[in-house]
Amino acid sequence: MPELRKDPIIGRWVIIATERARKPDQFTGPEKEPLGGEPCPFCEGNESKTPPEIYSLRPKFTPRNTPGWELRVVPSIAPFLRIEGELDRRGKGIYDMMNGIGAHEIVVETNQHIDNMSDLSEAQILKVISCYIDRIGDLEKDSRFKYVLVFKNHGVESGAGKVKHSRSQLIATPVNPKRVKEELSGARAYYDFHERCAFCDMIKQEMSSKDRLIADIDGYIAVAPFASRFPFEVWILPKKHSPDFTSIDMASRMGLSSIMKVVLSKLKIGLNDPPYNYVIHTAPFRRQSKGNYWKSVDNDFHWHIEIMPRLTRVAGFEWGTGFYICPLAPEEAAKFLREVKV
Amino acid sequence: MPELRKDPIIGRWVIIATERARKPDQFTGPEKEPLGGEPCPFCEGNESKTPPEIYSLRPKFTPRNTPGWELRVVPSIAPFLRIEGELDRRGKGIYDMMNGIGAHEIVVETNQHIDNMSDLSEAQILKVISCYIDRIGDLEKDSRFKYVLVFKNHGVESGAGKVKHSRSQLIATPVNPKRVKEELSGARAYYDFHERCAFCDMIKQEMSSKDRLIADIDGYIAVAPFASRFPFEVWILPKKHSPDFTSIDMASRMGLSSIMKVVLSKLKIGLNDPPYNYVIHTAPFRRQSKGNYWKSVDNDFHWHIEIMPRLTRVAGFEWGTGFYICPLAPEEAAKFLREVKV
Repeated sequence: MPELRKDPIIGRWVIIATERARKPDQFTGPEKEPLGGEPCPFCEGNESKTPPEIYSLRPKFTPRNTPGWELRVVPSIAPFLRIEGELDRRGKGIYDMMNGIGAHEIVVETNQHIDNMSDLSEAQILKVISCYIDRIGDLEKDSRFKYVLVFKNHGVESGAGKVKHSRSQLIATPVNPKRVKEELSGARAYYDFHERCAFCDMIKQEMSSKDRLIADIDGYIAVAPFASRFPFEVWILPKKHSPDFTSIDMASRMGLSSIMKVVLSKLKIGLNDPPYNYVIHTAPFRRQSKGNYWKSVDNDFHWHIEIMPRLTRVAGFEWGTGFYICPLAPEEAAKFLREVKV
Repeated sequence: MPELRKDPIIGRWVIIATERARKPDQFTGPEKEPLGGEPCPFCEGNESKTPPEIYSLRPKFTPRNTPGWELRVVPSIAPFLRIEGELDRRGKGIYDMMNGIGAHEIVVETNQHIDNMSDLSEAQILKVISCYIDRIGDLEKDSRFKYVLVFKNHGVESGAGKVKHSRSQLIATPVNPKRVKEELSGARAYYDFHERCAFCDMIKQEMSSKDRLIADIDGYIAVAPFASRFPFEVWILPKKHSPDFTSIDMASRMGLSSIMKVVLSKLKIGLNDPPYNYVIHTAPFRRQSKGNYWKSVDNDFHWHIEIMPRLTRVAGFEWGTGFYICPLAPEEAAKFLREVKV
């Protein structure tokens, strides 16, 4: 059983991931990767190579785990967290911990062996977005979970495996992640002072100055954030205020598919298919029974996607300080990406 | 001039490092590294290959920037921050920024072409530690600076360059780093509740349970922290409470040299010379004139060194959540490292 442990000083939770554990002496060489030449477990026809599907888009009355699907969600074969069990929060001396309960799912975005999400059609990206929303909605029903993070690792340097088949991941966690809580409380502090959403203000300023604007499509903007941590970092934000990614309607999902396709294509073409991560930051679950701790979130938080190309290494200074050093001004990155033809 | 910019939501400062800036199209290939075969700029005899020295250990009356030294500190040739100028804090719409004022120095730890600090003698490591303390003391005199971070990047994956000559770095910053502030406020919250230092409590518990203890030498312990972020993460802590690394006396500096030598040797031998970063977390400068904002630090903060081997990749989940996934239990890491003979 994986364990969630809390740093006694700064309160950061970590997952001690026993399911993926290696022996200490296995860290001395390169990580073992799946051998080449094996059939891709995510391609149509190889359904038996993954655990049974949790969700799929397939014609009615076709059996699960058989060909004919357009998109599939399967449990991770090496989950960071386990779905079965009780949270069992407990202490040991000064330390706090709980069982590593959660869900870890893989969204196989296409039945074709396509590596980069930017090569999917807009229609297919729309299906991926709708799938995220459906899965988050389903996981919300499990009262043990407080948050679902949707993310993607693309390319080996991003932490992805070697199988080149476009996919993303969902992890449901029993605690709200530190980074999300920081955004929530920062956004709330801004709202308390200004009585306006910080993200809405940012969108207005970016649309007016245009220095860091990369795209403005169907209700969404893509910007190189003012305080970018990484070269070519891109945030995608809906212009209309909303705390919840899961609440967007079909028109908004289509707009998001369009801008995702454009931005990911610009990165691929302009930067020679760089490794990248993206994460969706949405408000945590707000259940009636849990009181109103995040009550102000409706006004002050604004969901968005953060895309982080992995072109530079994070070094000791960053780890030690939480300060990032970005060797490219976001204004330059935005100018470059604006000019990439897609 | 580099620029410090603040994220308007979570308040994290980033450095937009114009001095190391590359053009946008230079990010599409691998980073350019110094060519092999060039003489090492950090070896004795090559003093002209670095900027003029700021500090050195050398026989009296020998001229600066000539051979004969045992240890040298030089400015970075590609500083993240610039020493000259005013801070000039200012806003632009919703954004906050200031000039990238600071100091960025390289501590050349030996005149020999030795790559790994663990291969230096204890006596030489002692000189390095004393040098850190001297340099922090000097930088404290500059009232523009609030903090000095001492850190080391070892090995290419850690963010170090390709020149294999043992060195560490100091960066003085005009703002307190986020990560340090989190530790200070976490430690203060613990102290407010328990009226004891969280780190002292941690040390007691680790010395009593011994599960995560790696070494206990001359007033210091080395432990695999309970909530390790990385496999084989090691923290070195002085058993005697002290907020300030800079206040340790000669006996304590010698103890620190001994345990550093042992821990770094265990990592090198046990894990086949892994890339790693270390950082020294000490209390920020507390100047009379700046009021008493950090007044409680004397009781509640406890300086320490965090050593982070870089054996796994940080992926989208970590970037998105601030949650770390550690694929090795710290108890296993400690057991393994305890058994490595040095």
